[in-house]
Amino acid sequence: MAVGLPTEAKVVNIGLSWFAESIRAQGGDVEHVDWRIPADGDHVVVAALTRLYGPASGRVESANAEVLRRLDRGVALLHDIRPAIDVVPGVTDRTLLHCGPAIDWPDVCDPLRRSMRAAVVAEGWAPDVEHADRLLAGGEVTLAPANLHATVVPMASAIGPSAPVYVVTNADGPTTAFAPISQGPGEVAWFGRETPAAIERLRFLRDVAGPTLRDVVRAAGPIDVFSLATQGIHMGDDLHMRTQATTNLLIRTLLPQLMDVGGRAGRELGRFLAGNHLFFLTIAMAAAKSLTLWAEQVPDSGIVTTMARNGTTFGIRLAGSQRWSITDAPPVQDALYYAGQGPETSAKDIGDSAVLELVGLGGPAAAGSPAVAAFLGGTMADARRATEQMVAICAAESSRFTLPVLDGRGTPVGVDVRKVVELGITPKINTGILHASDGSGQVGAGVATAPPACFVDALLDLDRRLSG
Amino acid sequence: MAVGLPTEAKVVNIGLSWFAESIRAQGGDVEHVDWRIPADGDHVVVAALTRLYGPASGRVESANAEVLRRLDRGVALLHDIRPAIDVVPGVTDRTLLHCGPAIDWPDVCDPLRRSMRAAVVAEGWAPDVEHADRLLAGGEVTLAPANLHATVVPMASAIGPSAPVYVVTNADGPTTAFAPISQGPGEVAWFGRETPAAIERLRFLRDVAGPTLRDVVRAAGPIDVFSLATQGIHMGDDLHMRTQATTNLLIRTLLPQLMDVGGRAGRELGRFLAGNHLFFLTIAMAAAKSLTLWAEQVPDSGIVTTMARNGTTFGIRLAGSQRWSITDAPPVQDALYYAGQGPETSAKDIGDSAVLELVGLGGPAAAGSPAVAAFLGGTMADARRATEQMVAICAAESSRFTLPVLDGRGTPVGVDVRKVVELGITPKINTGILHASDGSGQVGAGVATAPPACFVDALLDLDRRLSG
Repeated sequence: MAVGLPTEAKVVNIGLSWFAESIRAQGGDVEHVDWRIPADGDHVVVAALTRLYGPASGRVESANAEVLRRLDRGVALLHDIRPAIDVVPGVTDRTLLHCGPAIDWPDVCDPLRRSMRAAVVAEGWAPDVEHADRLLAGGEVTLAPANLHATVVPMASAIGPSAPVYVVTNADGPTTAFAPISQGPGEVAWFGRETPAAIERLRFLRDVAGPTLRDVVRAAGPIDVFSLATQGIHMGDDLHMRTQATTNLLIRTLLPQLMDVGGRAGRELGRFLAGNHLFFLTIAMAAAKSLTLWAEQVPDSGIVTTMARNGTTFGIRLAGSQRWSITDAPPVQDALYYAGQGPETSAKDIGDSAVLELVGLGGPAAAGSPAVAAFLGGTMADARRATEQMVAICAAESSRFTLPVLDGRGTPVGVDVRKVVELGITPKINTGILHASDGSGQVGAGVATAPPACFVDALLDLDRRLSG
Repeated sequence: MAVGLPTEAKVVNIGLSWFAESIRAQGGDVEHVDWRIPADGDHVVVAALTRLYGPASGRVESANAEVLRRLDRGVALLHDIRPAIDVVPGVTDRTLLHCGPAIDWPDVCDPLRRSMRAAVVAEGWAPDVEHADRLLAGGEVTLAPANLHATVVPMASAIGPSAPVYVVTNADGPTTAFAPISQGPGEVAWFGRETPAAIERLRFLRDVAGPTLRDVVRAAGPIDVFSLATQGIHMGDDLHMRTQATTNLLIRTLLPQLMDVGGRAGRELGRFLAGNHLFFLTIAMAAAKSLTLWAEQVPDSGIVTTMARNGTTFGIRLAGSQRWSITDAPPVQDALYYAGQGPETSAKDIGDSAVLELVGLGGPAAAGSPAVAAFLGGTMADARRATEQMVAICAAESSRFTLPVLDGRGTPVGVDVRKVVELGITPKINTGILHASDGSGQVGAGVATAPPACFVDALLDLDRRLSG
């Protein structure tokens, strides 16, 4: 049910859930009822929706409630940084963990190919990117979706076994998730670059940043990731496109340990952190994944617990199912581009960072972020509309990620596949945009709209499972 | 003229300026005209207002325009940290610079007395606070208002000659202003404490923080204070009651130099900065003072360029005049208190930090600050009303301090004594509250309302000067 936000206090859209669930108390006056034909009138889909809102709704609602509790209440603690091969389950030598659903080399998009080649060289498996390409094309490197190894990687990331990863544990699960250290701006592999500088950055992370930050994190003690994120949202972060405030909060929190590093490592790490305002991004991603890993153990739910893109395909999974629903990756719309760039030079939507949108961060938190507003039309009202769209398709509101501009209302949490299909509104994902082909890296940033087809597929599968 | 803010688009109050200046184009529909008797109908004051809006208005407007240009356009660079005696004009041995207007020892309020005694001990002029009290009571220490020495000090601060001060220069003046390093939270003299820990903090600032931060600032190069403040406002700071975001931005900016400190000084400074979210407060104050020093050189203006309190009296000065208009310090209203505290245990409004309210920070920036909103009723609408009140009595809007929640509108700048007196609305100052008598330090925080009497006095003096 799509309910307008407090200062507007109007119902925006009313569809099948409204009549199926019976009229509930409204948050305010109904000003305008824009009834749409559910699921565009597709009778197979409407029949599935009718079952999932009707006879099966008890099971679904009960499962959803537990999934929502896990997404909303899990406490994610960052407590270590280790080489992937030491901690990530199933990682062996000659494996690259990549963003998005599983993919074979011939289908890998240009920026991700470059990132993979850079990782192969940084691992020492090949002396240069040409040799790396031959190894990859020859099937001599195993490509594995990070998501299936409790790991999430941003944009066009591919990480080798030696890459340092954050270790974030949700003690209530217990579930532990991993994500690489943010590579920062500029010539970097996660933006689809494979220059010597991009490869050198991977080595710097492995040899300097990883071990140093490991010591810092261990000395500081476990860090409550979402406690910092909550403060960051009150300071204009959405925690996806913008993590400036939360990055800075973390740095001030760790300052005593950082200032204790000293020497050349201290100087290099200091410069790296000072220039990396997206440093917190992958920490937030690992924390989000530690919650979705817990939530996905619940069967029979219609809540999305995996949403990832590799630049070629876009895939989701529902809690309680290992099945991927996959479709083509969409372009990134509502975008701002660097000079000379535009849709024609842009790769498709890519990265695992959409895990943030599943726990109430990113698009759901847009309303509070002036920086995100700049990509959505320029005003805070534009940003608020992005959050309102997520309210329409989410099952709950966060009890911790509150939005001062909405008088403390929580960000929407828990993408409900029934609402998505019924209303034809899919999640908005705040993200960067990479060059489609020339290896020049980031060309802009904007908002991707998840493609509807995979949600329809997931809904029909849920209906089949519950009817079986 | 009081104009409602964009999303409301209504004229709120219309008084003498409206008919005196003739009708100008309005920003939106006039919904409600609440005409008040100007200056409560006091015929002497009305006569002065009539001259200042009438025959003298050309001179005043012209002077105001130049004052506003200086307050809005000056670029304040932090470039050094030095002991006060080395850089602050007129500081000699056995001098304490204190907040607010000039004051004699018998009239000094309890928290400021304690702060002065702590400073005397830290300077080594007395072995303990009892001896310090005798020196102060005996007139053996010169008490001087910091404001008359190009310096501003927060809350109940009193600083001795050895105290390290920020050196902030507005190159366009050129005008240079000074402020001490923020003492941080807890047992600290600026909160009216004189415990051994409070005295030790002063020594730490002199012996460790001052010299170390001096090296850091010199190595980093000049820091554009208002560039950071502009970003901080977009992250929920008002730069007075809340400087968390801007403090963190500064720390990340300085991180390479901070991480180069090393040793015991590095560890101690790291802990100090990690626990001091108001660290940026005094940097912002020094920067604001460097602009008001420039603006106050302009004669014939009705814009306030000094506003300071010592816990006993509240004083203002207009640009172009050395004359103080002084009245009793007010209590702090709209406050939140620590448990067991309240108006009856609260000292009166104190400190030089109100200089921030003169350049578009603090109260004028309340609308964008969730943290400040908590002190004003809890909602962002409450915070917006605080900014609206400043809009009513200010002569311009900042070109650099913009408020995303008001669609990028600038914060109000330049308190116009004519508008204050005409409308009976005085500046709101976001501030802390100290215990009135027991030396326990901060008891809460809130919003002080400047007392009207000193504005009336300043207006009458301006009228006399322009009529002479």
